[in-house]
Amino acid sequence: MQDLPVVERQHLTDFCQQVLQKFDISRDSARSTAEVLVSADARGVPSHGVSHLSRHIADIQASLTHANAQMECLSDLPAVALYDAHFGLGAASSQFAMQKAMDKARQCGVGVISVKNSCHHGISAYYAMMAMQNNMIGLALTNTAALGVPTFGLEARFGTNPIAFAAPSSTEIPFVLDMSTTVVTRGAIEICHKTSQPILEGWAVDKDGNSPQSPLEFLNDLLNLEGGLLPLGGEGVSHGGHKGYGLAVMVDILCAVLSGGKFGIQVRDTKETAASVSHFFLALNIEAFRPVNEFCRDMDLLLSTLKKTKPQKGVEKVIYAGLQAYELEQQANKNGVPVLPQVLNELLQIGKNLNITLNYS
Amino acid sequence: MQDLPVVERQHLTDFCQQVLQKFDISRDSARSTAEVLVSADARGVPSHGVSHLSRHIADIQASLTHANAQMECLSDLPAVALYDAHFGLGAASSQFAMQKAMDKARQCGVGVISVKNSCHHGISAYYAMMAMQNNMIGLALTNTAALGVPTFGLEARFGTNPIAFAAPSSTEIPFVLDMSTTVVTRGAIEICHKTSQPILEGWAVDKDGNSPQSPLEFLNDLLNLEGGLLPLGGEGVSHGGHKGYGLAVMVDILCAVLSGGKFGIQVRDTKETAASVSHFFLALNIEAFRPVNEFCRDMDLLLSTLKKTKPQKGVEKVIYAGLQAYELEQQANKNGVPVLPQVLNELLQIGKNLNITLNYS
Repeated sequence: MQDLPVVERQHLTDFCQQVLQKFDISRDSARSTAEVLVSADARGVPSHGVSHLSRHIADIQASLTHANAQMECLSDLPAVALYDAHFGLGAASSQFAMQKAMDKARQCGVGVISVKNSCHHGISAYYAMMAMQNNMIGLALTNTAALGVPTFGLEARFGTNPIAFAAPSSTEIPFVLDMSTTVVTRGAIEICHKTSQPILEGWAVDKDGNSPQSPLEFLNDLLNLEGGLLPLGGEGVSHGGHKGYGLAVMVDILCAVLSGGKFGIQVRDTKETAASVSHFFLALNIEAFRPVNEFCRDMDLLLSTLKKTKPQKGVEKVIYAGLQAYELEQQANKNGVPVLPQVLNELLQIGKNLNITLNYS
Repeated sequence: MQDLPVVERQHLTDFCQQVLQKFDISRDSARSTAEVLVSADARGVPSHGVSHLSRHIADIQASLTHANAQMECLSDLPAVALYDAHFGLGAASSQFAMQKAMDKARQCGVGVISVKNSCHHGISAYYAMMAMQNNMIGLALTNTAALGVPTFGLEARFGTNPIAFAAPSSTEIPFVLDMSTTVVTRGAIEICHKTSQPILEGWAVDKDGNSPQSPLEFLNDLLNLEGGLLPLGGEGVSHGGHKGYGLAVMVDILCAVLSGGKFGIQVRDTKETAASVSHFFLALNIEAFRPVNEFCRDMDLLLSTLKKTKPQKGVEKVIYAGLQAYELEQQANKNGVPVLPQVLNELLQIGKNLNITLNYS
């Protein structure tokens, strides 16, 4: 990582914001989106980071993402609400939604916001962490284009449907989970293709039921829903593949069936269109249950006990969800956000076209 | 299954209720508990069924379960509440809690009830399905005695911490997920021991980091938290074991850290004591988001599309969570609930001691 070019975090965020504002995106939405993108790179998830800026621009230019969309409230009760995002930027819509969920949680103890007709919202952890930063537990779910096969099935039927969850602690680094419910995401297969490495046995199944030999062929077949990524737990039921399958469907129901959005195979990326996705945000106000400091003290004990687990031979220490990303983020805040050379070149080109400067080192 | 003795469902439930009432359990609590127990056997989960009746009696006699415990409300907001179960029967406390969650969901759109100091509550699906039967989405979580190892760890640090989720549909059999977040539960290892079969590679890790060779030795070591069941996704991170680990910790946080109950390695079964567990119940009132009939119509489409997935060679059809259990339950309702011979003998002995008749065929 230290060999990658780095960009000062604030500057990279400003850059992305300025770029988006050139495309008729409001200042607030542009800022929200820029923050989520840069946060992904800072936390070691470049697949969801500033590399998406060009995709956002393309989607706006193709009117797949609507620059001036407003969140429309379709239903509102004391602790829940349903919004139509009208294909605004996913990050802006999602921040708006989690904010509403927290407002409701302050009044009622819990808040749930369901969002339909939205666009890709980057790392779901960002929204779960918004709640965490406000002494709440946050849960953020989204469905995605259909890429995963049901247990014993040969056709993609649901997305990688991630679950993000965050809870505050006191002295320990907070617990932040952000996981797809398939064994791996499409990104892992794309890396296999780019690096000429084989797809690991147990990651995916091709249209004939075998482990795919050619990443490129597999990715092409996936465009027709033929074959797919295996659900968490892997093939069959012997190691719990039916559980990952169940979790993926659960996320689809909470995001899309509850909101009246697109679900299952209705959610498709094609060469022309970005998928229409739906989200689910939940905030739990810890204070409604017990004093926040007591909760955080118990979180510290839980997390420190996990870290003290005797590790496997050859492993330095046991970690937990969120720890590594936190450390990377601290490093990025201090030394700059690492950006892959090809992504940096893309950003520099965008900046050049729009007359916006990007400094890096 | 057709060779097993069967007991008429209503009669088996009445029997369990009558037995429990002999131990100073109120009529309502006894009924609640009996229904949850029999429901497990009817749905093909005998590990959580009437075989637990003797354990409940032993726990009551040892004052580990308190026959006359009342649910005490410690905190109450419009959409959430926290209860101390004071070690009453887990099934009764859990039904009470999900009922409260639904009451709140009717008013606020969502209801969350957190329960601490509770006892084993049988199949979590039962409570998620209570919501489903009331046109709501139900989520029921519980923590359990520590049996699972963190990724790259050699000591048990969290329970099998199941996630149960249910959502209604119209013409299709409803989606009901009930899954531990470890690859398998302790029950699977006990079956290996009883049937002299090996533990499958990828299910568990012994105290030295190998796949356990002797189920009995492994089970004994587990009493000291040495070695443990692998989290869903298996060993290491290559196939997502860190995700199952994250889910298990998430359930522990939602159940026990949120409620101020026991978590992680504090939750232990010993020969003398049953574990003190905590639960989390969530009900989402579908009507607060969209018309129930539209939701159910979309569920039908989602589920029928899953069923129509082209199956692997040699597999008759693709199914989804809840389908098999539903079919078994229909069968049990019609032909009687199958009970293992050794469990039946145990029940008959209990009945004989208490002068309560149990008929079977």
